[in-house]
Amino acid sequence: MTTSYDPSNIFGKILRGEIPSEKLFETEDAIAIMDVMPQSKGHCLVIPKAPSRNLLDADDTALARTMPLVARLSRAVKQAFEADGVLVTQFNEAPAGQTVFHLHFHVIPRYAGVELVRHHDEMADPAMLKEQADRIRAAL
Amino acid sequence: MTTSYDPSNIFGKILRGEIPSEKLFETEDAIAIMDVMPQSKGHCLVIPKAPSRNLLDADDTALARTMPLVARLSRAVKQAFEADGVLVTQFNEAPAGQTVFHLHFHVIPRYAGVELVRHHDEMADPAMLKEQADRIRAAL
Repeated sequence: MTTSYDPSNIFGKILRGEIPSEKLFETEDAIAIMDVMPQSKGHCLVIPKAPSRNLLDADDTALARTMPLVARLSRAVKQAFEADGVLVTQFNEAPAGQTVFHLHFHVIPRYAGVELVRHHDEMADPAMLKEQADRIRAAL
Repeated sequence: MTTSYDPSNIFGKILRGEIPSEKLFETEDAIAIMDVMPQSKGHCLVIPKAPSRNLLDADDTALARTMPLVARLSRAVKQAFEADGVLVTQFNEAPAGQTVFHLHFHVIPRYAGVELVRHHDEMADPAMLKEQADRIRAAL
């Protein structure tokens, strides 16, 4: 099993601007973007810029700087969509659900009585993601 | 809906030493303990000492100091149980799965081909938790 960082992953490409994303904010340390395969309305991601595969090889300083951004985004999505709760998940290695091997945190609004969509391979409508992103940016 | 911090929650009691726990480590900022209703072998928790209900009202400094501890514990459980991955989850408000209203991070070892146990109301055998805790403490 490979456990080193491979910069050719999709989030590496997004961080380098090689492929587009619906960006919510950018700081010196991280970006936040919409998840293109959302599990609920407003599902977004915080991606630290520091290269690491996941939490297991992450730098403590990068983690320390990232977590307040996860909290900030959690508050924003809760407000933007009047969500009833927010689920934060972070997957380390494929058996734990990791599919992109650059450290990232999922920020997933939860709505009472609404089940999460199972992660699938279909991309969400970009216009819908942009509309949701506008609401989150307004709440940040 | 109440959204303020109520210190009578069970993790508040554990932090104050009013009820016992299987403690893995303690720092100035947080404790790590075994989850008494484990979803997999080695399921444990990091609980910041700073009083907050969840991520939505958490202090940035507390979050920054907690996350390296979550990473440290993730590495330890992966090593202790030769886990194939580690799932980190953090729930905000009941519709997102939160049941104890003091901020905490779940660190859940994952094993290839083994589904998570659904969270239930039955407490695990304390002797089993102690044995697992010994393995984690040895890996820290």
